[in-house]
Amino acid sequence: MSRPAAVLLSQGDEVLTGQTVDTNAAWLAERLTDIGFDVVRHFSVGDRLDDLVAVTRESLSLGDVVICTGGLGPTQDDLTSEAAAAVLGCELALDEAELAHIHGLHRAFKMKMAPSNEKQAWLPSAATPMRNDWGTAPGFRLEHTDAVGYFVPGVPREMRSFWEHRIRPDLIERFHLHPERLTVLRCLGIHESRLATILAPFEALEGVTLGFRTKLPENQVKLRFHPDMSLEDQQAVVDRAHAAIGKSVFGIDTGPVEAVIRDLLDERGQTVSTAESCTGGGIAAALTSVPGSSRVFVEGACVYANEAKTRTCQVDPELLEEVGAVSESVARQLALGMQARTGTTYAIGTTGIAGPGGGSLEKPVGTVHVALAGPRGVHHRKLSLRGDRERIIRLTIGSALDTLRRELQGLLPPP
Amino acid sequence: MSRPAAVLLSQGDEVLTGQTVDTNAAWLAERLTDIGFDVVRHFSVGDRLDDLVAVTRESLSLGDVVICTGGLGPTQDDLTSEAAAAVLGCELALDEAELAHIHGLHRAFKMKMAPSNEKQAWLPSAATPMRNDWGTAPGFRLEHTDAVGYFVPGVPREMRSFWEHRIRPDLIERFHLHPERLTVLRCLGIHESRLATILAPFEALEGVTLGFRTKLPENQVKLRFHPDMSLEDQQAVVDRAHAAIGKSVFGIDTGPVEAVIRDLLDERGQTVSTAESCTGGGIAAALTSVPGSSRVFVEGACVYANEAKTRTCQVDPELLEEVGAVSESVARQLALGMQARTGTTYAIGTTGIAGPGGGSLEKPVGTVHVALAGPRGVHHRKLSLRGDRERIIRLTIGSALDTLRRELQGLLPPP
Repeated sequence: MSRPAAVLLSQGDEVLTGQTVDTNAAWLAERLTDIGFDVVRHFSVGDRLDDLVAVTRESLSLGDVVICTGGLGPTQDDLTSEAAAAVLGCELALDEAELAHIHGLHRAFKMKMAPSNEKQAWLPSAATPMRNDWGTAPGFRLEHTDAVGYFVPGVPREMRSFWEHRIRPDLIERFHLHPERLTVLRCLGIHESRLATILAPFEALEGVTLGFRTKLPENQVKLRFHPDMSLEDQQAVVDRAHAAIGKSVFGIDTGPVEAVIRDLLDERGQTVSTAESCTGGGIAAALTSVPGSSRVFVEGACVYANEAKTRTCQVDPELLEEVGAVSESVARQLALGMQARTGTTYAIGTTGIAGPGGGSLEKPVGTVHVALAGPRGVHHRKLSLRGDRERIIRLTIGSALDTLRRELQGLLPPP
Repeated sequence: MSRPAAVLLSQGDEVLTGQTVDTNAAWLAERLTDIGFDVVRHFSVGDRLDDLVAVTRESLSLGDVVICTGGLGPTQDDLTSEAAAAVLGCELALDEAELAHIHGLHRAFKMKMAPSNEKQAWLPSAATPMRNDWGTAPGFRLEHTDAVGYFVPGVPREMRSFWEHRIRPDLIERFHLHPERLTVLRCLGIHESRLATILAPFEALEGVTLGFRTKLPENQVKLRFHPDMSLEDQQAVVDRAHAAIGKSVFGIDTGPVEAVIRDLLDERGQTVSTAESCTGGGIAAALTSVPGSSRVFVEGACVYANEAKTRTCQVDPELLEEVGAVSESVARQLALGMQARTGTTYAIGTTGIAGPGGGSLEKPVGTVHVALAGPRGVHHRKLSLRGDRERIIRLTIGSALDTLRRELQGLLPPP
């Protein structure tokens, strides 16, 4: 059975000239795919009326559903409503209810309403307004040549609320969708191509659609199930996929690894600290990026200079002299020294060469040592990474977090 | 004089389904605009041949130049060459020179060449190959209906090299461009809308094109000059813009603020350390994100728990009890304590409530204190930020870095 076709349209000179990267399109495309649409095209177009009319018309003729973001602001170059009216062959009309709503918002926030804000309440008379409960610009919905079009503001926060509360429910009803159940297996420490190989047999399963998403260093596996499939059968497929991938799965339908680590530490009353050299505070920043991290994260040290390694983590200065800062023994001393200093259950130590300078034949750029001190002793991993400075730092952060979560999940052999 | 029109075409299911965010389009759009093109459309299209043919044809009819990224890989669903051949009405032909090059690359890297890699050397016979010195997939150039099309791999690193070494020089010659000189004023601590107001009079200047680019917390002002404008006149405009914006300009045609700070500290033989609470190591991570930072960055502390603030920065436990961790006096003690501990010229301290929990009526979420200890004493800033946790952390990092660079550039009054 073929899936209905969706087209995305991003409007605005700032997208077209590369002033902003269009993240709305990818966000919407993922969600449209998840509920059963086939996204067939994205368009980006600037602030010229004739271009906008042409692309709006083309979008509505290509797709069963069109979502257009942007161009609903109060300024002269916000022409989306005008273009939609031209396509529908109708006038712009002042929508009194939406105007009252905009006035009300300004009163509620004690802001003076600029005359230009009234423009936002002029909508195509043949369209149906969609109330914006998250900002001033109303959206609208229209029907044309067997397609339905949703026109919403480009501000990501508002666009996402429109999707959640207006567009998604309407699409499900309109297209009689039974959104397939979606399960996401979140993985660390495994390459995308390896995942694809392992899961190739799942491609052939009846009622199961397999998808992948990479956000370095994480890889996600998405399993979508046809609504006719029983929950037991769905669970069996999830279990088989989990078993096939193995220990690289850090969570199923969970938050990011930082949240998984926070929860595991929190429920055991355990804590963590960090002593970072090459990652420069990035592991601490990651661990504290999730709310509630203060319950489990005690202290981080970014010991860049050798003197700092000694001062804060008691790394032996003679050892630094002898084997160099980038070595297994220094990584171990960083972790153990930080653990002793803070009294945390776990401590992470990193040292490495992120480049572009500082490499040698023995220790090329990308040589990294990660140590994790914990109740069972010290785990150590040596990494040989390729890529630029940013990538090496990011992969090291991922590897350190992955080592901690594997230890917390009981997946590592004793050190 | 109207500028020639450019169209961007991104090919691949991973872009269309939102598996990856398309950053190539924005990157190319910015550079095409910079050298004098008017980007009129982006298209994204998936791995279906008929869609690809239709969009390739439409792109070439809309633009004077088309750049297509992606779909040149070795797999079955890489159909860009086939689509281009269909548009040109020619066959795919094996290009012996490109095949030999691909073979050579595999030999050089001691990799076994998969039979599928040969597919990459089959190019439209009416197109001109473009050698890929940065990967295996050759690009190609074609001419059709008065337009020129460049087809390059979607891997960002390879795409960027193709732009720099193949496409940009060819466009400059082909369109007789005299790329306008571009000067970028990099700003921190000023809002985009304020910049637009200040610089509004510059919109009217003959031979000057004004552009903006925001990458939170930085705002960039781009001044493009017509080649006929004398260098003296250009410089006068830059100077006037700089004077109008004032101290918020941290650099003109420089690297990011972290690099500006690194260079200023380095040339004076000065150093910096950090004691972070709410920013969780993010300032240390920013300062160490640029190469060579080890010359000026000594040590960072992420003192999340109160005990850590006392242990590492000698923050008075009674003070913590009395005024709370989120206060001006604690921020000052963090900076001074870290400066005393490390002996660095400067030390930054941050404490605040990043949310979503932890706020109160007196100290709502977004309340942040930043302190900078230096040779002239301690500068303090209290911030009241809005937005989610990530935004509050990012804006605090920006504000702390901006305080340090303003002090280094002699722009702050004595504390």
